[in-house]
Amino acid sequence: MVNNNTVPGHKPVVETFELLESQVRSYSRNFPAIFNKAKGVQLEGEDGSKYLDFLMGCSTLNYGHNHPVLKDALVDYITDDGVTHSMDMHSDAKERFLFEFHETVLKPRNLDYVLQFPGPTGANAVEAALKLARKVTGRTNVISFTNGFHGVTLGALAATGNEHHRGGAGIDLGGVTRMPYDGYMGADIDTADYLDKVLSDPSSGIDAPAAVIVETVQGEGGLNVASNEWLRKVARITRKHGAMFIVDDIQAGIGRCGSFFSFEAAGVKPDIVTLAKSLSGYGLPMALVLINREYDEWLPGEHNGTFRGNCHAFVTARAALEHFWRDRKGFEATIARSAAQLEQGLRSIASKAGSSKLVLKGRGMMRGLEMPSGKFAAAVIKKCFQNGLIIESAGPNDEIVKCLAPLTITSEEMQSGLDILGKAVAATAAEHERAAA
Amino acid sequence: MVNNNTVPGHKPVVETFELLESQVRSYSRNFPAIFNKAKGVQLEGEDGSKYLDFLMGCSTLNYGHNHPVLKDALVDYITDDGVTHSMDMHSDAKERFLFEFHETVLKPRNLDYVLQFPGPTGANAVEAALKLARKVTGRTNVISFTNGFHGVTLGALAATGNEHHRGGAGIDLGGVTRMPYDGYMGADIDTADYLDKVLSDPSSGIDAPAAVIVETVQGEGGLNVASNEWLRKVARITRKHGAMFIVDDIQAGIGRCGSFFSFEAAGVKPDIVTLAKSLSGYGLPMALVLINREYDEWLPGEHNGTFRGNCHAFVTARAALEHFWRDRKGFEATIARSAAQLEQGLRSIASKAGSSKLVLKGRGMMRGLEMPSGKFAAAVIKKCFQNGLIIESAGPNDEIVKCLAPLTITSEEMQSGLDILGKAVAATAAEHERAAA
Amino acid sequence: MVNNNTVPGHKPVVETFELLESQVRSYSRNFPAIFNKAKGVQLEGEDGSKYLDFLMGCSTLNYGHNHPVLKDALVDYITDDGVTHSMDMHSDAKERFLFEFHETVLKPRNLDYVLQFPGPTGANAVEAALKLARKVTGRTNVISFTNGFHGVTLGALAATGNEHHRGGAGIDLGGVTRMPYDGYMGADIDTADYLDKVLSDPSSGIDAPAAVIVETVQGEGGLNVASNEWLRKVARITRKHGAMFIVDDIQAGIGRCGSFFSFEAAGVKPDIVTLAKSLSGYGLPMALVLINREYDEWLPGEHNGTFRGNCHAFVTARAALEHFWRDRKGFEATIARSAAQLEQGLRSIASKAGSSKLVLKGRGMMRGLEMPSGKFAAAVIKKCFQNGLIIESAGPNDEIVKCLAPLTITSEEMQSGLDILGKAVAATAAEHERAAA
Amino acid sequence: MVNNNTVPGHKPVVETFELLESQVRSYSRNFPAIFNKAKGVQLEGEDGSKYLDFLMGCSTLNYGHNHPVLKDALVDYITDDGVTHSMDMHSDAKERFLFEFHETVLKPRNLDYVLQFPGPTGANAVEAALKLARKVTGRTNVISFTNGFHGVTLGALAATGNEHHRGGAGIDLGGVTRMPYDGYMGADIDTADYLDKVLSDPSSGIDAPAAVIVETVQGEGGLNVASNEWLRKVARITRKHGAMFIVDDIQAGIGRCGSFFSFEAAGVKPDIVTLAKSLSGYGLPMALVLINREYDEWLPGEHNGTFRGNCHAFVTARAALEHFWRDRKGFEATIARSAAQLEQGLRSIASKAGSSKLVLKGRGMMRGLEMPSGKFAAAVIKKCFQNGLIIESAGPNDEIVKCLAPLTITSEEMQSGLDILGKAVAATAAEHERAAA
Repeated sequence: MVNNNTVPGHKPVVETFELLESQVRSYSRNFPAIFNKAKGVQLEGEDGSKYLDFLMGCSTLNYGHNHPVLKDALVDYITDDGVTHSMDMHSDAKERFLFEFHETVLKPRNLDYVLQFPGPTGANAVEAALKLARKVTGRTNVISFTNGFHGVTLGALAATGNEHHRGGAGIDLGGVTRMPYDGYMGADIDTADYLDKVLSDPSSGIDAPAAVIVETVQGEGGLNVASNEWLRKVARITRKHGAMFIVDDIQAGIGRCGSFFSFEAAGVKPDIVTLAKSLSGYGLPMALVLINREYDEWLPGEHNGTFRGNCHAFVTARAALEHFWRDRKGFEATIARSAAQLEQGLRSIASKAGSSKLVLKGRGMMRGLEMPSGKFAAAVIKKCFQNGLIIESAGPNDEIVKCLAPLTITSEEMQSGLDILGKAVAATAAEHERAAA
Repeated sequence: MVNNNTVPGHKPVVETFELLESQVRSYSRNFPAIFNKAKGVQLEGEDGSKYLDFLMGCSTLNYGHNHPVLKDALVDYITDDGVTHSMDMHSDAKERFLFEFHETVLKPRNLDYVLQFPGPTGANAVEAALKLARKVTGRTNVISFTNGFHGVTLGALAATGNEHHRGGAGIDLGGVTRMPYDGYMGADIDTADYLDKVLSDPSSGIDAPAAVIVETVQGEGGLNVASNEWLRKVARITRKHGAMFIVDDIQAGIGRCGSFFSFEAAGVKPDIVTLAKSLSGYGLPMALVLINREYDEWLPGEHNGTFRGNCHAFVTARAALEHFWRDRKGFEATIARSAAQLEQGLRSIASKAGSSKLVLKGRGMMRGLEMPSGKFAAAVIKKCFQNGLIIESAGPNDEIVKCLAPLTITSEEMQSGLDILGKAVAATAAEHERAAA
Repeated sequence: MVNNNTVPGHKPVVETFELLESQVRSYSRNFPAIFNKAKGVQLEGEDGSKYLDFLMGCSTLNYGHNHPVLKDALVDYITDDGVTHSMDMHSDAKERFLFEFHETVLKPRNLDYVLQFPGPTGANAVEAALKLARKVTGRTNVISFTNGFHGVTLGALAATGNEHHRGGAGIDLGGVTRMPYDGYMGADIDTADYLDKVLSDPSSGIDAPAAVIVETVQGEGGLNVASNEWLRKVARITRKHGAMFIVDDIQAGIGRCGSFFSFEAAGVKPDIVTLAKSLSGYGLPMALVLINREYDEWLPGEHNGTFRGNCHAFVTARAALEHFWRDRKGFEATIARSAAQLEQGLRSIASKAGSSKLVLKGRGMMRGLEMPSGKFAAAVIKKCFQNGLIIESAGPNDEIVKCLAPLTITSEEMQSGLDILGKAVAATAAEHERAAA
Repeated sequence: MVNNNTVPGHKPVVETFELLESQVRSYSRNFPAIFNKAKGVQLEGEDGSKYLDFLMGCSTLNYGHNHPVLKDALVDYITDDGVTHSMDMHSDAKERFLFEFHETVLKPRNLDYVLQFPGPTGANAVEAALKLARKVTGRTNVISFTNGFHGVTLGALAATGNEHHRGGAGIDLGGVTRMPYDGYMGADIDTADYLDKVLSDPSSGIDAPAAVIVETVQGEGGLNVASNEWLRKVARITRKHGAMFIVDDIQAGIGRCGSFFSFEAAGVKPDIVTLAKSLSGYGLPMALVLINREYDEWLPGEHNGTFRGNCHAFVTARAALEHFWRDRKGFEATIARSAAQLEQGLRSIASKAGSSKLVLKGRGMMRGLEMPSGKFAAAVIKKCFQNGLIIESAGPNDEIVKCLAPLTITSEEMQSGLDILGKAVAATAAEHERAAA
């Protein structure tokens, strides 16, 4: 039991987590500090230690921690007793977000979506998207891809590939058929052709799908990138077979890949898009399902959730659209500069890894290096933390070190992070070579 | 398409919702105002109209809207650049919440739970609870009850009774067996005996369950109340058959029934408890799974979610515990007084309904009146709104008008609400009698 | 490995089964003889030992073993090179069965069914019936009852209650909701009312069913008998809620309960009936689904199976209809006499069981005695076999000794069997009392 | 309703089927005669018309109709009042079959299997095999292949690819993952590598399987042939990943591909083998599951079925083993000769099809020609029937005309059949060319 500090003088200690929190906690095991302040790319520990954050809530904080413009909007709103919680009742905050999203995001991209606010988690958005696709098509099967990650509630988990998470279900996960992602069977095999073949073959055993759900870059699955050609082909095949094309843009969207939506470069227009993570811009829980207007067959309240009207998130989300995305070209250029610096930096690190072969993965500001093993990656991550850089891994065996720096990072901050990473990789590679010798 | 207001002069209009939001929206259909301010029991429309709120986010705002103590703590935290989003990394805000929850809630009630922070929705807490119960027991089946409501993501939806929501699944909902709730088969039949019989009978066809999940008062199901005896008996039967006893206290907990947990009066200690809604106290998304320490068999990260570390909610949740629950006896007495006034008021309204028979339902501050029909209830709700009271219905046919006033309501505010409700009921009953004549 | 007998001189030995057959074998464990001849009620062991057979293939041999009239028809057909196997192509043998079934069974009972020949097992008939009900209604859920037994292929197994069999599935069994059978909750509770309530309640959590499937007497479940009133009520409730009323008459039908169909006394007309076991009359594999003509929405070959045209079974089935059922009144009277003798005999045995309370179960020629325990019943069965009577148990704990003598048994044969059973019960009861003393 | 023939003078008419049998009937639609005699390759219509049967119960009658040696054994057994039906009790007939199967089939091939007798249908054997694999491994997932056919009861149907049959389920089919069969992705892609990759990748989304179930030649799927190398590789991969390797030899086994088991040429030893169709040799319902002795973890009666002891089938099955398979080399040579004649004949037919490109499919006596379309194939089949040849199609679009002549066919009979087929193809091709001109 926790020792009985008098509460007034209570000082946070790590033991509290160890004694009172479930074993399910995970990131905290890699980063055993207690954080109490955050600004931009920086996290500050209770003891005054400072860290560059290249994890950023797994792409939830694309504008950095506590961006001042968003912060001001939020504090004003709270101070002024704006409505905080209203389920799906009309609020001023929601109306302004809807309007801004339409003006700044949808209209310029010529997208005619209606917005659904599900429970404020990405998994909930995925659950809503799959439900709707099944309802609209009257079909059950959903196609998802190897190494895809779509959340861990049961409906979403069925579409998620990761065995660690699937194993926690405790019940058969049904209704989803797995197909090989772009490149999964090697560079020479077009896996979209296989998809088309099984959907065209009445005895393939793959039931006609309600939807095909895909990430353009697989964030948790290892920064695998689908080519624009493949995405367009998959979109065509999906429609040809009467299914809905869903892009799960929860991790790759909101600028992470260079544009607001990650699929803009491919020129596809999904039937349904799921957004969450960086949508509120401030780390506040918010999720969104964009639905091609003609498929909005929901009955009132058919999918619901108490926190589907998180007004604080509406306020910061709107502020972020105004501040960053009204000047689309300018912000895209900013991201492109950072992305170029990141790519060059990672290439340079890889080139100095000696006999340890590192592979550059991802695109835009969603980049990483595939290490020789998960163990190697874990050593790199540990060294980074010791030197003030918070960074994490992804991939089937946690072998890819993933950089999710804020899109707003300065060139100097980026360089500092890359330097720490570079040294950690070099040191780990050296250890590796010594061990092998 | 939305008309092209220049954004600086943008003024919120209802048309924006109609044009841009999905048909899934529901509460807004009953209350077609645009709200922009909220304080205590009061919601304010953009046009300056004022409403008493007896819906309160379906029991999410037990301390009223924007309680000043919580507001101050939150504004200070934000202003000070406290960490907003940290997934499950250690934060100062989280540590303080953990500590306070232990000191103020668990220790005085002699409960040895560890805390899991799932995604910040009640459904996510239920999904986590069911996963864990299945994992710990190695069984698949879960017992839930007629008229139960546990959320709409697929794992939770399987346990939910409501046909409207179940129908949205688009896929078979499995792994759950439905049992009759206390009183469901009439006052003379002890449905717990039936539960015991099917679990004892090796050819009953009811597989040995991982868990029995129950609400002590069914909020959405119609304010049905389980007796203390029945709850104790069900808890005993559950353990006897090797299953985990889960109380879903999302709507009935956090003071709504008179004590922090709704099951305190029954003297049961669940193996798992799910909390959400009023947990943060300020309407911010937050959910919690309390797990008997000996069953905390989670692997790190086995159940996860981006927004599982919503620090703003930790701050307000802690402030609420300090402000309201450190003085447990005092706050319980406050609730008891309001509950008595509410009960008396509703009895009085029922007694004046003429030939329309109204039945008092629920307990504590979770009370309502069963109207003769859903249509009758809808007419009452509409009249209430016209007279400045926001109130909603529940039950299989939306026939129960449900009062979820804040626990912090004053006697005068309560009386005002009851007066509006009383007049609406009387007027509807009169119309009803005229129509029948 | 089996010892290397030269095959010409091979003499059957029990070791062959022990060495070469899977552990799944079951009845052979209770009756460790090798049988080689059979006639009427009698089975003969290879060593010349003779047994009265009151198991009769679990009601598969209602006309006794190798009835001479059926045998002659079969031998003639084979000798004459009649078609043996023809899948669902037209054969003379099938046409004659169809015609006879219509003339002798359907027309006199005013039943307008079409006949589907599924794979020749009861489980296959149940699978076909459930598929069709789901197809016709567009619903998934099926209601089955506590202690029901409908077979062990996955679709049928989901409807079966027995834990021993369900446990073998290795996969979640879905799509079935279990309801309490007549009398399950005690004599005073009408379980049909509960069925009606959950189907009428839109938030009961019991999805609208495609079908209700019921046995009028639960053969494997313990000879539980549904009253005629209850059956009529369940049939009415089923139709009221748009579902198909299916009677699984595999064990209780074909005369076992006194009339061709077991549901004739109740005056119900099921939408679908499943038959198998005694249908061929000679123990040959054959199954049948009777479908209300207006629900015959099958597409050609939608449900199929290689052995769905077992012509040998058509020949004996037709011969049995001609021989026994053209004279309906006469055969029903014969059954009634035997049933009366059986009932009286079992009552007499029960009355002499001393302090061991035995309960008479079942109806017609489907009768048994509930023993104080499964262990008691096992002792009785063992003693019976030692004295030349083959008899088996049923019920949740195998505590009911079940008499399934042929309908064609003579009064003397019946008495001999009852005598052996009576002595076995008395001896077991005496042992029981000694042990308790 | 059927017209009221007096039964004594009843003469079979096609109308009886139309009036009394369900719409589910299928083969009878292509072959609208009423058959009443059968011998060897010949079926005889009631009107005296004679047909060569190249359908042979879809490979159920590998020794021809009513083979005299089997017939004599069966008639003797029946005449002598041998036990007909005994569930899984010991019978003389079963012992002799077990012994013969061991001596003649298992021992010479060095296979140490125990035998399970499931319900007498192939689907039931598949259900038993999958259940056992799931039980032994504690896993749920099963890998089956594109175009595979394993039966239509729910457990088996999940593994079957055919959309027409899957569509009849009326419920979600779960627990099976589909992989591309050998050659499915083109000649250059080794689909076994893909299987290995997904099973090795912890985030592929393909759960660790209990079993991989495969046909060596896909009978219903279109006579697709797996190479010996691929089969060996798949067997290796299956074991490497801790799963059971199941060969469904229901259609391809019992000599159809040249040896008793179809997998003998590949040199693999499956963990479980399913047999049915030609096992009894006489068209009588019988199925068998062969289980590697070390995996026989069944509990007594865990999988059962009333007709699992069809003694008539045991008698003919044993007689067939004695008559055909004791002289293994001789019978294999006979089959090889017929197979060579068949291959040559089909090649010749294909070479004369003009501009219609026909492709030879299958191997051994399981051969066919892929026609340009299902419509083309249907025209061929119709012409064949008009000229006295019964033959059917298979494949995703019923485009493959499939020859399943008896293994015992004479050279003259084979030539007659090929001549009819050749003429039908030539005529159809000519019509086709005229239509295209």
